[in-house]
Amino acid sequence: MNVVLIGSGNAATVLGRLIKSSGHVIAEVASPNAAAAQTLAKELHANAQTNIGAVTKNADIYIISVADNAIETVADQLQLKNKIVVHTSGAVSKNVLQNVSERFGVLYPLQSLRKESKHIPDIPLLIDGNTEETIQIIQTFAKTISKKVSHAGDEERLKLHVSAVIVSNFTNHLYALAAEYCKKERTDFSLLVPLIKEVAERIEIYEPQSMQTGPAIRYDAITIQKHLQLLSNQSQLKNIYEVMTASIQKFYQEQNGK
Amino acid sequence: MNVVLIGSGNAATVLGRLIKSSGHVIAEVASPNAAAAQTLAKELHANAQTNIGAVTKNADIYIISVADNAIETVADQLQLKNKIVVHTSGAVSKNVLQNVSERFGVLYPLQSLRKESKHIPDIPLLIDGNTEETIQIIQTFAKTISKKVSHAGDEERLKLHVSAVIVSNFTNHLYALAAEYCKKERTDFSLLVPLIKEVAERIEIYEPQSMQTGPAIRYDAITIQKHLQLLSNQSQLKNIYEVMTASIQKFYQEQNGK
Repeated sequence: MNVVLIGSGNAATVLGRLIKSSGHVIAEVASPNAAAAQTLAKELHANAQTNIGAVTKNADIYIISVADNAIETVADQLQLKNKIVVHTSGAVSKNVLQNVSERFGVLYPLQSLRKESKHIPDIPLLIDGNTEETIQIIQTFAKTISKKVSHAGDEERLKLHVSAVIVSNFTNHLYALAAEYCKKERTDFSLLVPLIKEVAERIEIYEPQSMQTGPAIRYDAITIQKHLQLLSNQSQLKNIYEVMTASIQKFYQEQNGK
Repeated sequence: MNVVLIGSGNAATVLGRLIKSSGHVIAEVASPNAAAAQTLAKELHANAQTNIGAVTKNADIYIISVADNAIETVADQLQLKNKIVVHTSGAVSKNVLQNVSERFGVLYPLQSLRKESKHIPDIPLLIDGNTEETIQIIQTFAKTISKKVSHAGDEERLKLHVSAVIVSNFTNHLYALAAEYCKKERTDFSLLVPLIKEVAERIEIYEPQSMQTGPAIRYDAITIQKHLQLLSNQSQLKNIYEVMTASIQKFYQEQNGK
């Protein structure tokens, strides 16, 4: 396929690399950020375009990969008749593109994408389209760049988006809180890396509910008290500790009550 | 070394396998749980012993790997003169063993150990001992079973233990909450596995503080509102969402304020 990529941030960059390495041609990279557009266009052997309204009309698919709150602004500048146009957001309705083309939809990568990372992780794609035919075309394209493609409407996509926030943003914040704590206490956070990886890798085989360990689920009041004592001058971390401990205990009470 | 293993749970089992596969001999597995002692003893080609007070006196090192609140009970039954005796807890002082032997300490695996898992993950070991000589002996032994061995006293070990709870127990709880939510909403939690793994694997290369993404750090009030709306009938998850979102914003305000 002949692809126009609109955007030059993390998602646009990683998707662009993946699309190109899957054998498609990136005709143009469009972004008002001229430097970023040129850098990415050069990497992808594409033309750079800083005027979004002036993108080439000769591509097959237009991928709008910009911040959620910029999608509408981009859409307002585009008139693409019956070309396939998608955005890549988990939290924005496909209908924001309804005035851009007769065939519009979504190509949402359910992954955290960072352009500085050389390796491209597995990227499940949630796709959607305004008609069965559009869904089929987007799905066929998506399958050329990912082994895991699912159809999800606006609401289901948003449900997976909030789940993604919980398992990735919140998880990363716990890592950050612990790293900050270890730094303050002059102890070595890197000792925790094998543990972090092990807990994440288990998810592929075991249900997380059945893998819960630690003082909260054991109602080990002595250890919990030792921990809270240690965190007594770390109000933010202490609050998270108390909230998560209570949540773990509530969760399993409810599970056992079923 | 000739090893006696006291305990038959997850940590005892995985440590036992690791010790045996590193070329040591497990002389005895001691546990009041006869069935578990026999199963583990058989796997490790060791004798099973159900009377802890009657363990062989001919081993070099005695590893007490039982629940935190059972360590003292076990210690009360042992008199081992000058044998090396360690427990494997992150949250219990080494001094709980001071009446068992003249040479006592700790061998704490900073990892989540599950006996049902066939593969043995990397296991950093935090060791301690009551004298320099004891520390040396335990350290030498620890290095034969792990590539990552550090000395940590009671307080530093407890600090790493609370950090481990934060990055593993709390993280796993977030996975469990999201899995439960996906189940209720009949959407596919397994689509989140590549994301979970990616976020964890990055820790090896990048500081988690620099990897934070998502609506909280972007102050994306529209997306946060959409998420809270979706979670409006999930009070526990909604509470966690609000607490974590506020914590992320506070964390970076403080970081930027430095």
